[in-house]
Amino acid sequence: MFTLAQIVADVKGELHGDVDMDLTIRSIATLKNAYSDELSFLSNVKYKGSLAGTQAAAVLVSASLLNELKAPCPLIAVKDPYLVYAQLQQKFYPMQQAQGNIHPLAIISDTATIADDVDIAAGCVIESGCVIESGSVISAGCLIARGVHIGKHCLLHAGVKVEADCQLGHRVIVQAGAVIGSDGFGYAWSGQSYMKIPQVGRVVIHDDVEIGANTTIDRGALGDTVIHQGVKLDNLVHIAHNVEVGALSAIAGQVGISGSTKVGQGCQMGGQVGIAGHLNIADGCQLAGKAGVISNIDKPGVYSGFPAMPHRQWLRISALMSKLPDVWKKIKGKE
Amino acid sequence: MFTLAQIVADVKGELHGDVDMDLTIRSIATLKNAYSDELSFLSNVKYKGSLAGTQAAAVLVSASLLNELKAPCPLIAVKDPYLVYAQLQQKFYPMQQAQGNIHPLAIISDTATIADDVDIAAGCVIESGCVIESGSVISAGCLIARGVHIGKHCLLHAGVKVEADCQLGHRVIVQAGAVIGSDGFGYAWSGQSYMKIPQVGRVVIHDDVEIGANTTIDRGALGDTVIHQGVKLDNLVHIAHNVEVGALSAIAGQVGISGSTKVGQGCQMGGQVGIAGHLNIADGCQLAGKAGVISNIDKPGVYSGFPAMPHRQWLRISALMSKLPDVWKKIKGKE
Amino acid sequence: MFTLAQIVADVKGELHGDVDMDLTIRSIATLKNAYSDELSFLSNVKYKGSLAGTQAAAVLVSASLLNELKAPCPLIAVKDPYLVYAQLQQKFYPMQQAQGNIHPLAIISDTATIADDVDIAAGCVIESGCVIESGSVISAGCLIARGVHIGKHCLLHAGVKVEADCQLGHRVIVQAGAVIGSDGFGYAWSGQSYMKIPQVGRVVIHDDVEIGANTTIDRGALGDTVIHQGVKLDNLVHIAHNVEVGALSAIAGQVGISGSTKVGQGCQMGGQVGIAGHLNIADGCQLAGKAGVISNIDKPGVYSGFPAMPHRQWLRISALMSKLPDVWKKIKGKE
Repeated sequence: MFTLAQIVADVKGELHGDVDMDLTIRSIATLKNAYSDELSFLSNVKYKGSLAGTQAAAVLVSASLLNELKAPCPLIAVKDPYLVYAQLQQKFYPMQQAQGNIHPLAIISDTATIADDVDIAAGCVIESGCVIESGSVISAGCLIARGVHIGKHCLLHAGVKVEADCQLGHRVIVQAGAVIGSDGFGYAWSGQSYMKIPQVGRVVIHDDVEIGANTTIDRGALGDTVIHQGVKLDNLVHIAHNVEVGALSAIAGQVGISGSTKVGQGCQMGGQVGIAGHLNIADGCQLAGKAGVISNIDKPGVYSGFPAMPHRQWLRISALMSKLPDVWKKIKGKE
Repeated sequence: MFTLAQIVADVKGELHGDVDMDLTIRSIATLKNAYSDELSFLSNVKYKGSLAGTQAAAVLVSASLLNELKAPCPLIAVKDPYLVYAQLQQKFYPMQQAQGNIHPLAIISDTATIADDVDIAAGCVIESGCVIESGSVISAGCLIARGVHIGKHCLLHAGVKVEADCQLGHRVIVQAGAVIGSDGFGYAWSGQSYMKIPQVGRVVIHDDVEIGANTTIDRGALGDTVIHQGVKLDNLVHIAHNVEVGALSAIAGQVGISGSTKVGQGCQMGGQVGIAGHLNIADGCQLAGKAGVISNIDKPGVYSGFPAMPHRQWLRISALMSKLPDVWKKIKGKE
Repeated sequence: MFTLAQIVADVKGELHGDVDMDLTIRSIATLKNAYSDELSFLSNVKYKGSLAGTQAAAVLVSASLLNELKAPCPLIAVKDPYLVYAQLQQKFYPMQQAQGNIHPLAIISDTATIADDVDIAAGCVIESGCVIESGSVISAGCLIARGVHIGKHCLLHAGVKVEADCQLGHRVIVQAGAVIGSDGFGYAWSGQSYMKIPQVGRVVIHDDVEIGANTTIDRGALGDTVIHQGVKLDNLVHIAHNVEVGALSAIAGQVGISGSTKVGQGCQMGGQVGIAGHLNIADGCQLAGKAGVISNIDKPGVYSGFPAMPHRQWLRISALMSKLPDVWKKIKGKE
């Protein structure tokens, strides 16, 4: 808990309104739910109507909007209230720190190398040759196969599976149930049956990546599947073998990326996007939800639909689709 | 096992045809597979042709269809044969009852409160402060984090993960591998990277909910993600942070619902539906499989397609789509 | 490791070029990444440009292309280089062989029958009445419920869940986190609520099937869900109750198949395909990624789109969709 004075100083905000700066702020809440000892924030101008009814002690707002806002409480003007909300929330709820607690019922190979200040919870299995660096927290029931390397200050939630020889960088967060390093979907047709192609590459996950619950990332067939620095993957995402996802890309739930496709840096994908195999997606592409990509995308921009096309074109075509009955009537009328 | 007389009395059915009422009925089977000591049912009139060949001891049918059916066996007329099938199947296969068996190799925190008649199977991890009420069955390998509350007569199948502080009501069933309470996909862009927003809400699941295998439900960012009474979620469904699903809604496999969207009561969704964030879906909406919803739906009804539209409009447009080659020819012909 | 002479003899290839046949080949790599003691292969003529820069000791190529290829290294002509790559990779990386190692911290029921030469890793739970035949490998944290039967030489990766009474044939591979035998999504509406229909069938998986990470296969409501011989399922696939998938079908990531649908033999499906319930898909169908099937498919062929249609028709319509703005302009111009 922090005083309002501490918070205002910390976020370098400008306080507008009359308030007791020694007030202890308990936490952050939405405009609607905040109590009088809580802070709130307005990050989307469309919700400015909710300001009127809030009981928050103070509200973070964008400096640029300050003049058009009316509120029953003091306002703290900052450049980006949503970012400041994130920063404060990290102060209120700091990441779980490893304490060096190894649960007596974690099963750890004698040949694993575990740093002193690592937490390993009950029910984990850490196989031979694994390395877990300092500050990492391995929650209950994680299954870490032989030869896996986990960097510093990682957090694996419950029941994560990391298959043999995969690598995680530093500060990687993996949500519950995710699978890293399953075999890619690789077979050769023999004439009578599918012959399995041993998948001998790894998954390599760079620093600051977060991976969603029950997401699956396949190991490479030859060479590695690579998730670059700062990538965020949501839940139930499917990353096939030898995919490469460029740094700082953010990929929403249930997206599927087929084998050997390379996604550029700073891309964003909405939910349920699908991308065919062996494609290149340029840096800075935004793919709207449910988009289906079946050819390379060479230029940054917003793309939608199936097959994916520039978003403006898709908007135009979608609008015209709803006029198809009219089109048809007119054509029939002219016959 | 029950006699035919017991069954007919139990379902308040009207028996038509000549049969030994003391016959012991072993179980229920499809018309095609039933043996002579099994009961069957006809719930879809399109299958009435299968009546002719059935060897079932008797068949549950709709009273309203009785006159048009011909069968080689007695018929039991009831109002809703499918519902009666469900009721009887619950008699033949009652839910697993907890016996108070705690497996010696379940790992249970000293500060957890477990009712006397709870089953906890091998390999489970129950962390500090959890409460599990009477009659609940926790199958092998479930991972229940600190502070979780599980109500009465719940059934968690193998390997379910419930993250910290989440709440399950009474009679909640969770299929294997589901994740309840993973972090929502919440970041603020700092200009250089995505800054994680601690997700400090919970998942609150009300009574009589069922959750499918490997489905994931994210905890709220602020405030809770809420699944109301009687909701049924199929496998591999993705429920994002702060979503609210109204009572008695049924959601099929691989549906994804984005953050803060509110789904009304009594809604139904086909497989692979996607709903964008911050939307409202009215009570009583039916969304056909693969529908993509990108704006509010204010009225009950059937909706299809992407972007989702009233189902009849979608049918009309889909039909016209297949005529596009004709349209084009005619237009070109008139130039 | 094998000499080049051994490899050429083994694959019955024809060597073109000058090379030391006693050279030891360490492994197989892509044209781009191969070192001078590695073999590579050219399976897609579109990559023939990469031959020029390869450092591989030798390259497997199609005999039919031999005359048009130029390479800085010897070529080994075979009928199907991709198949030969698969065969050699199986030589270089033979499947993990069971050694009869039962980890002391695996929890195995006294009434389970485990063959002598089965491996069971730490953290597994094998319940009453299970049978595991010889040569099978059960990786860490697998949860095998009562009455499950697992055939010979199966490989279950970490954290697989197999629910009660399900059956796996021989040489079945299951990737991490998959769920076999969860309850189907079956309810009858009582007028006030959904009444659960006990799902009393099993999942029966035939020989040589492979199942992807976090894929879910529901048990039958009455009768079984059946995956026939040689089927390959990718990650995050959803197979509903009483589905039947015909032999040698291959189904890519995030496909969903609804209840009671029958998929023929030798079918192929791209990612994110959805198939409605109670349908028949003929042998030899190929469904392109994201296809949505809402009626029976009676003839083999390639199908795309939603609703799914013959692929050539879909190509034609997709092309015309992008001309809709033109169509509209012309129609408006003629008014």
